[in-house]
Amino acid sequence: MAMVCLSDFEAYAKKYLPKFAWDFFAAGADDCNTRDENILAYKRIHFRPRMLRDVSVMDIRTKLLGTEISFPVGIAPTGFHQLAWPDGEKSTARAAKAMHTCYIASTYSTCTLEEISAAAPGGFRWFQLYIHRNRAVSQELVQRAEALGFQGLVLTADLPYTGKRRDDVRNGFCLPPHMKLKNLEGAFEVCKMNPSFHSLLDPSVTWNDIYWLQSLTHLPIIIKGILTKEDAELAVRHGVQGIIVSNHGGRQLDGAPATIDALIEVVEAVQGRVEVYLDGGIRKGSDILKALALGAKCVFIGRPALWGLAYKGEEGLQDVLRILQDEFRLSMALAG
Amino acid sequence: MAMVCLSDFEAYAKKYLPKFAWDFFAAGADDCNTRDENILAYKRIHFRPRMLRDVSVMDIRTKLLGTEISFPVGIAPTGFHQLAWPDGEKSTARAAKAMHTCYIASTYSTCTLEEISAAAPGGFRWFQLYIHRNRAVSQELVQRAEALGFQGLVLTADLPYTGKRRDDVRNGFCLPPHMKLKNLEGAFEVCKMNPSFHSLLDPSVTWNDIYWLQSLTHLPIIIKGILTKEDAELAVRHGVQGIIVSNHGGRQLDGAPATIDALIEVVEAVQGRVEVYLDGGIRKGSDILKALALGAKCVFIGRPALWGLAYKGEEGLQDVLRILQDEFRLSMALAG
Amino acid sequence: MAMVCLSDFEAYAKKYLPKFAWDFFAAGADDCNTRDENILAYKRIHFRPRMLRDVSVMDIRTKLLGTEISFPVGIAPTGFHQLAWPDGEKSTARAAKAMHTCYIASTYSTCTLEEISAAAPGGFRWFQLYIHRNRAVSQELVQRAEALGFQGLVLTADLPYTGKRRDDVRNGFCLPPHMKLKNLEGAFEVCKMNPSFHSLLDPSVTWNDIYWLQSLTHLPIIIKGILTKEDAELAVRHGVQGIIVSNHGGRQLDGAPATIDALIEVVEAVQGRVEVYLDGGIRKGSDILKALALGAKCVFIGRPALWGLAYKGEEGLQDVLRILQDEFRLSMALAG
Amino acid sequence: MAMVCLSDFEAYAKKYLPKFAWDFFAAGADDCNTRDENILAYKRIHFRPRMLRDVSVMDIRTKLLGTEISFPVGIAPTGFHQLAWPDGEKSTARAAKAMHTCYIASTYSTCTLEEISAAAPGGFRWFQLYIHRNRAVSQELVQRAEALGFQGLVLTADLPYTGKRRDDVRNGFCLPPHMKLKNLEGAFEVCKMNPSFHSLLDPSVTWNDIYWLQSLTHLPIIIKGILTKEDAELAVRHGVQGIIVSNHGGRQLDGAPATIDALIEVVEAVQGRVEVYLDGGIRKGSDILKALALGAKCVFIGRPALWGLAYKGEEGLQDVLRILQDEFRLSMALAG
Repeated sequence: MAMVCLSDFEAYAKKYLPKFAWDFFAAGADDCNTRDENILAYKRIHFRPRMLRDVSVMDIRTKLLGTEISFPVGIAPTGFHQLAWPDGEKSTARAAKAMHTCYIASTYSTCTLEEISAAAPGGFRWFQLYIHRNRAVSQELVQRAEALGFQGLVLTADLPYTGKRRDDVRNGFCLPPHMKLKNLEGAFEVCKMNPSFHSLLDPSVTWNDIYWLQSLTHLPIIIKGILTKEDAELAVRHGVQGIIVSNHGGRQLDGAPATIDALIEVVEAVQGRVEVYLDGGIRKGSDILKALALGAKCVFIGRPALWGLAYKGEEGLQDVLRILQDEFRLSMALAG
Repeated sequence: MAMVCLSDFEAYAKKYLPKFAWDFFAAGADDCNTRDENILAYKRIHFRPRMLRDVSVMDIRTKLLGTEISFPVGIAPTGFHQLAWPDGEKSTARAAKAMHTCYIASTYSTCTLEEISAAAPGGFRWFQLYIHRNRAVSQELVQRAEALGFQGLVLTADLPYTGKRRDDVRNGFCLPPHMKLKNLEGAFEVCKMNPSFHSLLDPSVTWNDIYWLQSLTHLPIIIKGILTKEDAELAVRHGVQGIIVSNHGGRQLDGAPATIDALIEVVEAVQGRVEVYLDGGIRKGSDILKALALGAKCVFIGRPALWGLAYKGEEGLQDVLRILQDEFRLSMALAG
Repeated sequence: MAMVCLSDFEAYAKKYLPKFAWDFFAAGADDCNTRDENILAYKRIHFRPRMLRDVSVMDIRTKLLGTEISFPVGIAPTGFHQLAWPDGEKSTARAAKAMHTCYIASTYSTCTLEEISAAAPGGFRWFQLYIHRNRAVSQELVQRAEALGFQGLVLTADLPYTGKRRDDVRNGFCLPPHMKLKNLEGAFEVCKMNPSFHSLLDPSVTWNDIYWLQSLTHLPIIIKGILTKEDAELAVRHGVQGIIVSNHGGRQLDGAPATIDALIEVVEAVQGRVEVYLDGGIRKGSDILKALALGAKCVFIGRPALWGLAYKGEEGLQDVLRILQDEFRLSMALAG
Repeated sequence: MAMVCLSDFEAYAKKYLPKFAWDFFAAGADDCNTRDENILAYKRIHFRPRMLRDVSVMDIRTKLLGTEISFPVGIAPTGFHQLAWPDGEKSTARAAKAMHTCYIASTYSTCTLEEISAAAPGGFRWFQLYIHRNRAVSQELVQRAEALGFQGLVLTADLPYTGKRRDDVRNGFCLPPHMKLKNLEGAFEVCKMNPSFHSLLDPSVTWNDIYWLQSLTHLPIIIKGILTKEDAELAVRHGVQGIIVSNHGGRQLDGAPATIDALIEVVEAVQGRVEVYLDGGIRKGSDILKALALGAKCVFIGRPALWGLAYKGEEGLQDVLRILQDEFRLSMALAG
């Protein structure tokens, strides 16, 4: 089976992953309208391609908050990589480093931050944070990440509670016995993902907690989950360095807009004061180009990274990134 | 089979109800365009979700004409609950009371108003009225309802004649021998639902009959079936206390607008002078939130209540309401 | 099999008619986009239904150029009724008379005008005319029709050449040996429908030929096939008495607009100076009401009449008309 | 199997061509959205058909840069005709000449320009050019074409690199051993189509190279692949004689607009200063009429020509052209 485009990796993952794991990665909230819209919305956007421009040399590198990456695609934070590949987040870290891009490691990793760092020393990484009711847990995570050389803190803002993903409820989703939420070991007795686990998160977090985070760390703060100009304005005013336009892959509020649609108003509101990124629905190189044309500095991939891992671990993820890189470069050339 | 969302109850009801009963509950007029539009219209409405708001405590209670209910979902009037569950409307009344919400009992109940009252004493109930050619029948029903403690009178305005539901015609729909339109016993010789039964209703009813109703009772009058700003204005002028934006579940005029679309102009016309509710197409918590965001004080569920009854009587209906309550609370949190 | 709605007759006709005949009646030009749009366009039009109006008595009669019909649905001109039922147009004439409506007999009838007249004496009929290269043929037809008591002349304007109906080409469509274009017997040696037959029609007909027709007859002239305001204006200026907005059932120019969409601009252009009718896509009572609400005085049915004939001859056609009548009356009541 | 419309030829070609060849001809870039949009866009365009015009005589001839063709449909440049029929481009040339229309021979022909010329002496032909990194190769091709009597030079502007056609990658598409890119023999050691072959093209070509081309030849230059008003303006300013609005059949940048949609802005920008043509999505006569109504002087067919070749070589291609001609003439008549 030739792996020609990202759909091939999707088909592979669907075929070879255990059903409960595939369902967990694929899940969207409720009827999955937002999850599907993330992809469909790109079809409604057309290029105005320009011809006869010299496209013999193209520079597709970019910088995230000053750090260069090889092309404008990073790895979005997703949990439980060991469900996709035995080495889990260690493989993800190695692939991201090999491809010279940014990997946002999730609080819900099945490897410790220390293991992730050791697996790919010197890699460009950000750390994704959920704020727990027990603030000491969150504080400790932030400080471990900073100490380990993570270069940014990504605060997920759209999960005060977990969205309702029907298949996960039906499957009674929980981690297999040999996997743990390793970064939270010690903090909580049961380091297992299960329906009650998310209730350890604090639904009372507000914009003021950005100040609290700033007091804990020198790392730049990127806020993830913004979908409106009003919240974009608030984010800028509270001193974040970046915004990830995201609807959590359509896994939280079904009925939220497609991210590529929300991007437009966020970019307009932000007026270049902070960097704006996007995740959700990126499946081919032209999607990346559309997001950049509409003002994103970079996009992040979630599910496609997991499909790559499911295919062949770090090699598979590199394949996914390489395909996107080639397609992106080609789209740029063809669009002039 | 796990009952995770309302579609699960629908599938159950379709599988286990007798075909003629399923067809009757599911029926829409003609090509069922309006019935289906009621649901599809929600997909076209997107949230503008806000982040980092304190959603740790949420109050989802509301009041209908001054009476508190636990969350903004009531039971719309539908007929023949014994087709779904042996205890019929008695179960419905018990479930509504247990969930602290409002149940609108139909003229076409298969239990008497007295049985319904006795089954759940003290429950919050409204009575739905059709006006018969023989006005004495209607008058007697209104006065029985008032005497029994029903707290509101819901006048159905969109059924001068019954809509054409093709499957009912094909099935020759009528009630089984052991069921009766019990509230009309004595009033009519044949208390059976059949094609000619509806001809006992009065198609000459006009707005002036609102005054007649007001002369019969002290109960507040809620008018059900309004879809235009013109009729909303007339309703307010004739002194009703509430409006239910409804197209009778798409069972009457095929080609009528989806209720969530009609809601907007009704709310704008009413300008808060009376309470506005909606039924039709509510299938998940985010639908409720959309209706409320567009100005409804509360929504009512019709078919989903019947699916709940078909599943496990009052327990099943409570399950349906509890799922909607959880989903609504979650949607509110996730939308900020 | 209960015949509840027009689709039931369609299914019957598809099942029991010979394939070549079904294909001929069902055919649309090219990809059948316009044929299908005729029906789909109604779905995009929503009512604004009004409530609490006295709908106990409704008068659904109307007049076509002064002659009363029982409800605003007539029989559009279609050819070759013997393909649907042995008695052919004689049955059509009897059904139309029984239902007190107007039947537009086609030039391409398989019964003579005389047979049609004799079958239902005193019926309200118009005669549909194609103008032949040999004008004497057309003149003779017009004068026979007038002499026989036909009350109007319907000039088809949209068939200078026949549209390309792929299935007819594939089937090598022609009439069976025992059927003839009886009205043209004597005029042409071969009274058989075949690919070359239509070449007897005159593609050089222009608006001036309206004057020629007017010189031949005292009958009012109705022009069929108008789809634009420009042509509607020309029709009025040339002194026609009525306009049928039609795209020939989508059988001529694929890509022409749906008739219900074209109706709006024609009605606006005509400003009541002549009567405007419509054919194409009428499948249920609410379609009729939509067309009337948008300015049509009456609609005509083509294929549904043939399905009725195919079901049970004149009885079947009466069934079709009666269903439409009931549905139309109900839609009127429900829309207030 | 009757060949009634172009879809019949498509079905034939799909059935009888080797899979790799069918896939190559059918391929679109990425998800094939643009390829499919080319066709779907015509469905959204409706005629405003006019009636009672004298359509007995119609002149469907037109001129391309002064040279008359029998009707406004030419043969777009496509490669590798021997994949469709053993005689390859020689058959194409013969069919085009027989039908008195223009054939644009591709650089990637499997016959030499000399063979093409000899096969149909005196035929009206243009030569399609890719500019190679080795400019001497391109220069030699231009001068051979001019010497052989080709009457125009079509510069393809939208292929600095080849689009990603997934099936071609999966099939490892390359020419069979007995076929060659004959026009490039001698210029390159390997005259085989393969993934690296296109890298011989020069992605640094810019508008200035139009001047270089003009210095090489007296032939008029037509630029192919323009989709925006900005590029149309540049084309006019650089002195081209014609523009082909094209997205390379949806084979290059997925997400480019349908050509019929792009045509409108190009025509408006050009204001008649040069001739504007279109290719992409033409499948029936009414498509041609829509393109002409929107300002195209002529359209070109790509895949349908190949299907015609696959059916019966030059006879098959003539069949395709004749069907389009008949359908176009009929559409003109029916649209008035």
